[in-house]
Amino acid sequence: MNQKIAGQVSREDLARICPTISRRTHPEFGEGSGFEVEVAGVRFGTGAPVVIAGPCAVETERQMIEVALSVKAAGADMLRGGAFKPRTSPHDFQGLGLEGLKILRAASDLTGLPVVTEVLDVRLVELVSQYADMLQIGSRSMQNYPLLVEAGRSGKPVLLKRGMAASLCEWLGAAEYLANEGNLNIVLCERGIKTHTAGEYSRYALDLNVVPAVHAETFLPVIVDPSHATGVASRVELASRAAIEFGSDGLLIEVSTWDRDPEAQRPLCDADQAITPETLARIVEFVRQRETAELYSSDPAMLLGSEH
Amino acid sequence: MNQKIAGQVSREDLARICPTISRRTHPEFGEGSGFEVEVAGVRFGTGAPVVIAGPCAVETERQMIEVALSVKAAGADMLRGGAFKPRTSPHDFQGLGLEGLKILRAASDLTGLPVVTEVLDVRLVELVSQYADMLQIGSRSMQNYPLLVEAGRSGKPVLLKRGMAASLCEWLGAAEYLANEGNLNIVLCERGIKTHTAGEYSRYALDLNVVPAVHAETFLPVIVDPSHATGVASRVELASRAAIEFGSDGLLIEVSTWDRDPEAQRPLCDADQAITPETLARIVEFVRQRETAELYSSDPAMLLGSEH
Amino acid sequence: MNQKIAGQVSREDLARICPTISRRTHPEFGEGSGFEVEVAGVRFGTGAPVVIAGPCAVETERQMIEVALSVKAAGADMLRGGAFKPRTSPHDFQGLGLEGLKILRAASDLTGLPVVTEVLDVRLVELVSQYADMLQIGSRSMQNYPLLVEAGRSGKPVLLKRGMAASLCEWLGAAEYLANEGNLNIVLCERGIKTHTAGEYSRYALDLNVVPAVHAETFLPVIVDPSHATGVASRVELASRAAIEFGSDGLLIEVSTWDRDPEAQRPLCDADQAITPETLARIVEFVRQRETAELYSSDPAMLLGSEH
Amino acid sequence: MNQKIAGQVSREDLARICPTISRRTHPEFGEGSGFEVEVAGVRFGTGAPVVIAGPCAVETERQMIEVALSVKAAGADMLRGGAFKPRTSPHDFQGLGLEGLKILRAASDLTGLPVVTEVLDVRLVELVSQYADMLQIGSRSMQNYPLLVEAGRSGKPVLLKRGMAASLCEWLGAAEYLANEGNLNIVLCERGIKTHTAGEYSRYALDLNVVPAVHAETFLPVIVDPSHATGVASRVELASRAAIEFGSDGLLIEVSTWDRDPEAQRPLCDADQAITPETLARIVEFVRQRETAELYSSDPAMLLGSEH
Repeated sequence: MNQKIAGQVSREDLARICPTISRRTHPEFGEGSGFEVEVAGVRFGTGAPVVIAGPCAVETERQMIEVALSVKAAGADMLRGGAFKPRTSPHDFQGLGLEGLKILRAASDLTGLPVVTEVLDVRLVELVSQYADMLQIGSRSMQNYPLLVEAGRSGKPVLLKRGMAASLCEWLGAAEYLANEGNLNIVLCERGIKTHTAGEYSRYALDLNVVPAVHAETFLPVIVDPSHATGVASRVELASRAAIEFGSDGLLIEVSTWDRDPEAQRPLCDADQAITPETLARIVEFVRQRETAELYSSDPAMLLGSEH
Repeated sequence: MNQKIAGQVSREDLARICPTISRRTHPEFGEGSGFEVEVAGVRFGTGAPVVIAGPCAVETERQMIEVALSVKAAGADMLRGGAFKPRTSPHDFQGLGLEGLKILRAASDLTGLPVVTEVLDVRLVELVSQYADMLQIGSRSMQNYPLLVEAGRSGKPVLLKRGMAASLCEWLGAAEYLANEGNLNIVLCERGIKTHTAGEYSRYALDLNVVPAVHAETFLPVIVDPSHATGVASRVELASRAAIEFGSDGLLIEVSTWDRDPEAQRPLCDADQAITPETLARIVEFVRQRETAELYSSDPAMLLGSEH
Repeated sequence: MNQKIAGQVSREDLARICPTISRRTHPEFGEGSGFEVEVAGVRFGTGAPVVIAGPCAVETERQMIEVALSVKAAGADMLRGGAFKPRTSPHDFQGLGLEGLKILRAASDLTGLPVVTEVLDVRLVELVSQYADMLQIGSRSMQNYPLLVEAGRSGKPVLLKRGMAASLCEWLGAAEYLANEGNLNIVLCERGIKTHTAGEYSRYALDLNVVPAVHAETFLPVIVDPSHATGVASRVELASRAAIEFGSDGLLIEVSTWDRDPEAQRPLCDADQAITPETLARIVEFVRQRETAELYSSDPAMLLGSEH
Repeated sequence: MNQKIAGQVSREDLARICPTISRRTHPEFGEGSGFEVEVAGVRFGTGAPVVIAGPCAVETERQMIEVALSVKAAGADMLRGGAFKPRTSPHDFQGLGLEGLKILRAASDLTGLPVVTEVLDVRLVELVSQYADMLQIGSRSMQNYPLLVEAGRSGKPVLLKRGMAASLCEWLGAAEYLANEGNLNIVLCERGIKTHTAGEYSRYALDLNVVPAVHAETFLPVIVDPSHATGVASRVELASRAAIEFGSDGLLIEVSTWDRDPEAQRPLCDADQAITPETLARIVEFVRQRETAELYSSDPAMLLGSEH
């Protein structure tokens, strides 16, 4: 009857799995307060959500600059854009590489918005760190432990996306790899999980329950990617608002402007989930009116445990 | 290479699966408008979300009346409460049955709030219809087709919960069984799906993506049950707000007041997900300030398809 | 940190959930032996697997008789065939009803093979019991508790399929509803679960791990449905053999012969997963050579727990 | 109604995703024959399944040599053992590294069995290639594309495990990254997927349906890891036999001998799923009696498509 099953862990194991970032081992944070992560002047975890926006991939300088200017005009806080893209097939567009990094840096300098970009090769952590303000570890790399160690050592702030089948424990274990190198500048990012519904009407299932669960178990900030979690542009605004209601410390959003540039082509990557700058502006306005802090810091008990 | 797989359907098949309720076969509704369902004066699908609240199960008259009065005081629109409970074990509390129905009727009459309650036995549809204003078909019964046929024939409005592994097509197929009997007074209810995360930090995964997908495929209203979709009382307010942001036409919420009654006992069913009347009042206030209509009726194109 | 989650159960709760059928409360069965269920002379749980075969649905007398004769000729032990079909849409073929039951009875009498057929309406348990030797409770009905109670009271042997998202605990809880009425003639049936892979290359995911888990937790027999668990005819033989290797007490297989009858039409239901009588004969031959008993009864310790 | 969902692919896209390894683009293989992969004299894909066995991790020279000798004595074809271990927490045992590689080489030389070991750091592909006969890419690394490119360039045979939430298309896309570097010496390995059942009675869900689906879509061999796919030692023999029935080209099995060495300690990694050498010997005996070829090469049509 008592068949032992290998490899099982649960939230009770978090003090052992991730002692550096667990609230269980850091009572000094109490239940309501968290650690603030700074990225070139932008602060995560203050109660005021951070909006990061930009194209899926950097495709041309013209495209990236145009999107960056529109992101700036919409009032967002940071830029995103992929120079190295993890794609299902080697025959898909893989990103511009170093050229893309240079374009991202130029777009960041032009707009004054810090930029986050994905690094997926451990050998390129140093190079990407020279151009980016924050390193993104993608879903497919969440358990690429050598990459996590190098990203931790880089000293750069890191955006750690959740793997698409990762448990909460596995995700926080991955964050511990970063923290274990002395780097606490970690922002977690929920981006949807794979379920039986995959592909019927959404790309992934947006798992908002994990946001307060992260807040309960660690003092690190957590944001939400509404673009991948829906896969449908017309739902990105809805998902952004819902994420903020759930206490998300920010948003990571894909934007494109290709249809207003007569010389541009349809994006090579995930065009169906990119929103327009106008929609982004509405999202930013919504975020500014609502401070996460109101929701959960004012009444820490609300976040945790039964109401009775 | 072309292995045929039995039983596969996709959204393209909806015109065949559910012609009575599909937008594909009812172009007269266009993309933005829907069918309004009335339950004893309360209207679903108007743009103003409906809040239904009450205990998981009716346990005593004293408990139900107390909760009903507090639900009324909090400003909600309808009552809920289970007289017949589908439980994992026959040794669990199964509900008060007819006695529970009478208590529900009394609570409804006292407060003036219409009441919805679950019917899970096809032989009891007529009996439950005598006491309830709306019949609930639970998740475990979503594919109980004889029950759907009888509920359809009863002429009563029906709240049809989504099965915990149901695809959108299967759910709308179930609704078609009701509609096929000439009963279009159907309100759909998302309540969380089963995924690999089950039990780690939430009861189910709240699948908000399905709300706009329902709105895109049928003209029927759809509400959300934030209590089962989280399984954690302290998240019910967050989930309620998120559901409204996603365009939900209403909420179905579990409330208890046992801890303020010195003679009461802890509820026999799902105590950990029931909120207090104070939290319910905050949720109602939020709902009243936001009309779903604003979000999606003003710009139907926003709901549907790519932005570009 | 210690957020309570409503409704969570685990295998440690089985003594409470299903005391009538749990090994935990029935040490007299030890670890290796089980309860034998008899259906009109056919015995499940003896170590010799039982093969049940027939069409998805009874469509005509000619079709059913032809299939029944070929099932008999292939050496199988029992007949299957649906007279009442739970279908995604009310506009799909729903089965022949009473006419189908009569055809099934005739096919059973002609071949001498006992017949199992699904009952999905609690009001028809008595009627179906008059014609069938064993009642099938389908996946969609696993948590139709009134139906389980009536099936339990009928005294007829019951084949209880697993719900497509059911946990082991929920499944055994459903079996307890039958047993609680004094009916221990229960055979469990695994038929595939819903996962993120649904529809890409199989209909469901065949979950063979559950077979030894059932054997560890209850003394009731458990069989496997390789037709629904694959959804692909060419894999049914593979899945049948694999199920037997995993200690399954039997198989429930869909067979058709329509392509050899110049007057027959393609089956209305699940044609792509039905095998030919020739393939069935090979499966029966394989089963006869292998007695489940060899695998797990000879060394009970093998079934349970760590090897070390 | 026609909401576009980003990033969706299906089997129809395989000719574009993985043209180098797809049967769709290589009609010369027909439906039944495949590519044979050689690893230091051991051949995969011949119809005779290959058995690979060894400890989860190399812990000491004494342990590894003892296990290797017992694996040899049991009649297996190849050794396995981890020198670099991807672990949920950085505080878990990470493997012996270079020291482990040297021990593996010594164990291989002593027994004459080729050895496969995991490489998870792209910077160590060359080092691991010096010691191992075959490189393993683990589940967590299936979409570590830089690692796949380097492994492809190494020219070494590669064992590519399926990611725990990977679709068939994503898995074959990963294999294409290897093949695209001119390396066709690829063996795929199914090892269980994450589902709602995770942890209740098994570690993962063993997805045997994917084995014939792989055979239908590519000419590359595919094996099964029954240890991770169950997480329970007493089921490894059952799962091994079931995998062979499904046409698997081999098995990857964890073995330990610690309980017979009075000086040894319980393994640091996955002890509950490791079998004894005696069980391994029975599995080898079963495999030798059954040639996969019989099952599917003799009748290619059986593998593919409907029977009718």
